[in-house]
Amino acid sequence: MSANDAVLNKINKPALLLDEKQCKANIYHQVVKAKRLNLALRPHFKTHQSARIGEWYKELGVKKITVSSVLMAEYFANNGWKDILIAFPVNILEIDQINALARKIKLHILISEESAIDKIVTKVDILVSVFIEIDTGQIRSGFKLLAIEKIKSTIQKINNSKHLVFSGFVAHAGQSYQYKNEPEKVKVLQAKLNSELLSLKGAFQEAFISVGDTPTFSLSDNFSGMDEVRPGNAVFYDWMQYQIGACDKEQIAVKLACPVVAIYPEREEFVVYGGAIHFSKEYVLTDYKQRNYGQLASINAIDISDEAFISNLTQEHGVVKASKQLCQQMKVGDLAIFYPIHSCLTVDLMPKYHTWSGDEIHKFRFF
Amino acid sequence: MSANDAVLNKINKPALLLDEKQCKANIYHQVVKAKRLNLALRPHFKTHQSARIGEWYKELGVKKITVSSVLMAEYFANNGWKDILIAFPVNILEIDQINALARKIKLHILISEESAIDKIVTKVDILVSVFIEIDTGQIRSGFKLLAIEKIKSTIQKINNSKHLVFSGFVAHAGQSYQYKNEPEKVKVLQAKLNSELLSLKGAFQEAFISVGDTPTFSLSDNFSGMDEVRPGNAVFYDWMQYQIGACDKEQIAVKLACPVVAIYPEREEFVVYGGAIHFSKEYVLTDYKQRNYGQLASINAIDISDEAFISNLTQEHGVVKASKQLCQQMKVGDLAIFYPIHSCLTVDLMPKYHTWSGDEIHKFRFF
Repeated sequence: MSANDAVLNKINKPALLLDEKQCKANIYHQVVKAKRLNLALRPHFKTHQSARIGEWYKELGVKKITVSSVLMAEYFANNGWKDILIAFPVNILEIDQINALARKIKLHILISEESAIDKIVTKVDILVSVFIEIDTGQIRSGFKLLAIEKIKSTIQKINNSKHLVFSGFVAHAGQSYQYKNEPEKVKVLQAKLNSELLSLKGAFQEAFISVGDTPTFSLSDNFSGMDEVRPGNAVFYDWMQYQIGACDKEQIAVKLACPVVAIYPEREEFVVYGGAIHFSKEYVLTDYKQRNYGQLASINAIDISDEAFISNLTQEHGVVKASKQLCQQMKVGDLAIFYPIHSCLTVDLMPKYHTWSGDEIHKFRFF
Repeated sequence: MSANDAVLNKINKPALLLDEKQCKANIYHQVVKAKRLNLALRPHFKTHQSARIGEWYKELGVKKITVSSVLMAEYFANNGWKDILIAFPVNILEIDQINALARKIKLHILISEESAIDKIVTKVDILVSVFIEIDTGQIRSGFKLLAIEKIKSTIQKINNSKHLVFSGFVAHAGQSYQYKNEPEKVKVLQAKLNSELLSLKGAFQEAFISVGDTPTFSLSDNFSGMDEVRPGNAVFYDWMQYQIGACDKEQIAVKLACPVVAIYPEREEFVVYGGAIHFSKEYVLTDYKQRNYGQLASINAIDISDEAFISNLTQEHGVVKASKQLCQQMKVGDLAIFYPIHSCLTVDLMPKYHTWSGDEIHKFRFF
C-alpha cells in the first residue's frame, strides 16, 4: 500500500480505500488470462457495484457482464451495458422489471430448477436468453449434473416457448472456498469440474458452458472445454482469497480505514470505530482457530508487519488483537487500516470508495 | 403475525416488515417497566434508526436517547431530540461534529480509557457532558471496575477542564447474550452487576449509573441502585433474544420477507432471494448445532409451525432447511418470511420498513 497522507487526513469515520492502480492491474490480469486461455470473460460486477469501475473493464474491451440481481442489472443497463447475465435463480416476482430490461438490452436469466420454467414461460413477453444453472457440488442452487431428464425437459420447454432462447449452462464452484493454501487441490477441483461439465456438451449438442469463481479462475490454467469465465471478487481480492492462496497481499485493492478510539495495552487489544455494519460479520479462522473479522494492514501510512486482527465485532465496535508494543506505539485518533475478510460484503456496506489519488468513486446502493 | 395480503402483494424483493402495533407494545413495556423500577429510560436508537419510530417513544414522554455514532446523533438532533448520549468511545477525529452538536443539544460523550481524555480536553470548545464507560466483563471497551486510580484521575481531568462536565458511569453487559434460555442466570448476572457498580457510588460520591442491554432489561426486575437503563433491541427483539428467553416469538416486531426462487424437495431445502446483504451474517446455533441465519415464520400469510431456517447464506442467496412436505407445498414466487437473528444488523441493512397497515417508514442511512 502506497499510502497517501492527504487522503487519510480527510478521513474521520470508517472509510473504504481503493488502490485504483492495483484494481486496474487486477482487471488487466483477468482480461489477459481469459484471452490466453481462449475463454470469453463475463466478469461479475456484484463485488464492485460501481459504474466507474465497470468502465475500467470496458476500456479493455469487455462487453458482457454478470450481476446478481435485477436491481443491479437495471443499474448497469442504465450505465451503458448491453449484455447482462443475472446469475441468480430467476425471481418470478420481478417479471415486469425483467420484461422491461429485456426490451433495452440483451438479457440472460437463470433457471435453477424445473418448476421455475413453467412460471416464467407464461410471463415473459419479449426475447430473453435463458441459461440453465448446474450445481457442481456447492449444493446451493442449480440442477444436479446427473438430472439429465429434468434438464432435457426444461430445455424443451424453453425451445417450445415463444420468447425464450436456450443459451447454455452456468456453474459456480463455490466449494473452491473450502481450501486454504492448497492451490493443487483447487486445480484438481477445476479439472474435475471441466470433465464433469464436458459430459453436458456431449448430451446437449456442444452447448455453451460458463463457469468461474475467483479461486479457480486465479489458481487454475486448465479450463479445458469451458467457454466463458465469470470471476467477481478478483477485481479487489481480500483476506479470504489471500488465505486460499488465490492472491498476494499486494493484490488486495480495497481496505477499510477505521479510527482508533480506545487502546488497552495490558489486554493487548485496541478498539476501532468500525463494526459489523462496516465490515460485515464474515470471518476466517487464524492458524490458532481464532475468529478474524479483519486483518490489520497499517496504522496511518505505516505498514504493520505484526500479526493483528479484529477478534470481535459488534454493531460499530471492532476489538483488535495486537502486540503490546503496537498498542503502546499507537494513539487514539490514529487510523487503523484493514484488509477486509470478504470484500464483496464490506464493499456492499460502504457508500463510496476513496481512491489513493484523492478521488471519490460512488457506487449505486441497491435500495 | 397478522399478515396482510395487500402488503405482501406489493413485495417483489427482500423487504423488511414491521408490525407497528407490536413495536408500540414493546415501547410501552419499556416505558412502564422503567417507571415501575424507578429508573430513567434512555432507549438506544441504534436498533430502529428511524425518526418516525423515535416519535412513538416521544409520545410516551421519553426525552433522552442513546445512539452509537456521531452520525446517528446528528440525524436524531435534526429530528428534534435535545438530549443524546453517544454510547461509543469518543472518536476524537469527529471533534468538529461533536462541538457543533453540543452547540445545538445536550450532548453526552463516553470516555473509555485514560488516553482519550487528554486528547479531548484540548479540543472541546463548548459544554459537553462526559460519562465514563465501565467494562463490567464484556471486555470490549471501558475502564476496569477496579481501576479506581485511573478513573479518579480521569474524573479529575474532566473536572479541571474548561468545558467538560462529569455526569456519571455507563456500563453495557454484553455478556448477557451468552445465556440461552437461562433467565435465572441473567438475573444473577444483573444482581452481580448491581453490587459491583454500586461500589462506584461509594467511591465517587453517589455518581449516576446508566446500564442496560436488552436481555438483562427484559429478564431482571432488580436494578437496585442503578439510575438509568438503555435497552435498544427491545424495540423489535429477534430470534437471538427469543433463544435467550428475553422475548416471546409474538413480541418480535420485524421480519424479513424474501421471494422463493428455487425449491429442492429431494434435498429438503429451498432457496430464497435474501442473503448476507439483507440479513447480515449473524447466526445462532440450533439445538443440533447447525448455523441458523434466519428462522422461517410464515409462507405468505400462512404461519409455519415446522422448524425451518436458513442454514447457508451467501451474498444474495439464502438456503433454507425445511421439511420435504413444506417444500412440496410451496411454489416459486411465494414469499418466505423470516424472524431475523439479530434485528439491529438486519434493520441496518434495509432501507425502509413496510408496516402491516400498508405504510412505508424510511430510516436514515448513516452514509
